[in-house]
Amino acid sequence: MKKLINDPADVVVESLAGMAAAHPDRLAVDLGLRVVSRREGATPGKVGLVAGGGAGHEPLHAGYVGRGMLDAACCGEVFTSPVPDQMVAAFRLADGGAGVLHVVKNYTGDVLNAEMAAELVAGTADDEGLQVETVLVDDDVAVHDSLFTAGRRGVGATVLVEKIVGAAAEEGRPLAECAELARRVNDRARSMGVALTSGTVPAAGLPTFSLAEDEIELGIGIHGEPGRERVLLRPAREVAAALLEPVLTDLAPDRGDPVVVMLNGMGGTPLMELYLMYHEVHTLLEAAGLRVARTLVGNHVTSLEMAGCSVTVLRADDEIVRLWDAPVNTPGLRWSL
Amino acid sequence: MKKLINDPADVVVESLAGMAAAHPDRLAVDLGLRVVSRREGATPGKVGLVAGGGAGHEPLHAGYVGRGMLDAACCGEVFTSPVPDQMVAAFRLADGGAGVLHVVKNYTGDVLNAEMAAELVAGTADDEGLQVETVLVDDDVAVHDSLFTAGRRGVGATVLVEKIVGAAAEEGRPLAECAELARRVNDRARSMGVALTSGTVPAAGLPTFSLAEDEIELGIGIHGEPGRERVLLRPAREVAAALLEPVLTDLAPDRGDPVVVMLNGMGGTPLMELYLMYHEVHTLLEAAGLRVARTLVGNHVTSLEMAGCSVTVLRADDEIVRLWDAPVNTPGLRWSL
Repeated sequence: MKKLINDPADVVVESLAGMAAAHPDRLAVDLGLRVVSRREGATPGKVGLVAGGGAGHEPLHAGYVGRGMLDAACCGEVFTSPVPDQMVAAFRLADGGAGVLHVVKNYTGDVLNAEMAAELVAGTADDEGLQVETVLVDDDVAVHDSLFTAGRRGVGATVLVEKIVGAAAEEGRPLAECAELARRVNDRARSMGVALTSGTVPAAGLPTFSLAEDEIELGIGIHGEPGRERVLLRPAREVAAALLEPVLTDLAPDRGDPVVVMLNGMGGTPLMELYLMYHEVHTLLEAAGLRVARTLVGNHVTSLEMAGCSVTVLRADDEIVRLWDAPVNTPGLRWSL
Repeated sequence: MKKLINDPADVVVESLAGMAAAHPDRLAVDLGLRVVSRREGATPGKVGLVAGGGAGHEPLHAGYVGRGMLDAACCGEVFTSPVPDQMVAAFRLADGGAGVLHVVKNYTGDVLNAEMAAELVAGTADDEGLQVETVLVDDDVAVHDSLFTAGRRGVGATVLVEKIVGAAAEEGRPLAECAELARRVNDRARSMGVALTSGTVPAAGLPTFSLAEDEIELGIGIHGEPGRERVLLRPAREVAAALLEPVLTDLAPDRGDPVVVMLNGMGGTPLMELYLMYHEVHTLLEAAGLRVARTLVGNHVTSLEMAGCSVTVLRADDEIVRLWDAPVNTPGLRWSL
């Protein structure tokens, strides 16, 4: 295992210490609890947006804490759900009195822990009046039921939900509306990914899976879970088609629909290739009669140093595009602030 | 070779086509000339900032075109200088009547082509009155004279020069002042990098160099040029010390000096590790009595999918920090806009 780390057991907390040191103006980091929140604390009267998940997907989620996006994030071990206590701590930090929306990627461990955290809060006198609503993200069309997951896995759409609902919360919308919007964005988004190589979980020390030198895996999960099929390495335009076809078949957009597209790197693929892949995806979307309203290209939901990418397509509308464009200031996504 | 590409010969132009498709609001891309410029054209009365270089270092340079940074960038083949005609085309696109500052990383090919481009402009009636001043960036402390380079190589400080001088140009400062500032920033900045793995140039099809499974190379160049020494893989804190020690020795800052620090990923290292490395660097800088004024962590000057990172330290002052903080809106760096 070749990594820029010290003891594999300390990777997550030392990485969070780096985030704290790099962004002292924006982030407050509790290294004991591994919870990251906005420097300035919760915004009174605003719905608090919380997300969490295993480490190894950076900048997701801690990198999306800041104005216009999350209020707090909690961070599990690499590829491991945070525990309920961490989630409860994040809820409290995010609570400005208008309730908390908890965005959870659909993995069994994360879902169970989120349910337990919600119950803990409901049953604690300290948290009387703290309302928590949970929304699940399950946008990965590759497989139904999978390692770690009942139903579809939550992947790239998480970033879109966090950005768009983050903007809505910033506008002062109530919890029920924020939750409805989050579900609407998730319902209108689909993703699929491809791996060229596997990442290595530091505590494991060996690659999660192995692919032959001429082999790629279509439909890969962000923890290296099996995808749809292993096929021979092929030109980028064929890879793009193999990802986009199931996404569009499942999403079934109408011609002329505006879409928000994310071409996401898995961590080990250079930006030059991501832009090249985006060119192929953009060409296919236009050929399908869709109108690309907004685009995001880069490493946003990663899987350690896995080489590969994923495509997320969101059927947008004027409201979604307006909320997408709203100011945001986080380490991982920033504009107009 | 496992890459998300089509024909290796088309990688650069297809990647630029992806940039054009992803950023239609900001960028104008001439795919024939492989020159990227601001959508809105040159700003009348403003010094135009131009940079160029081989592809494979994305987001450098095309990803730094936009308000507050570059006016135009030209793009050579992977790890190959752009030719003088491309540079001249970029000068013309960037020229708002106040002259053009050409930022060139110190590699022999780039320097010779830049000289030729400046001569071409000086000798062409079309360009009468177009003043071009060239500044070299040579911040890499690892080696003196190297493959492709006489003197020191230009690496991470390029981003700092482009950002800081970009802000100065936006303020309306004249060409001579912008050039003086660029040289001052370069003089006050030092970098050093480390590789864990090699990238593969698409046209070559094989890794540029090879390292054993337990070996890293200190002082690596961004084209895989040899560094100072190959050593055994070691904990991140020792790698950080091995990079920072020669940087600080050469820079010789005074205790209490404010510094701008970039912890740069080489393309294949995940953000989790970059933040962990930043934690080590930050700790060492504080132990050296320096004050970290601003921090940038991420993939900014890459070397294809190379795993590894580099550290750049800039001795700042109030003016430099103020210009660093000035608004910028490019695909690769964006804030306050």
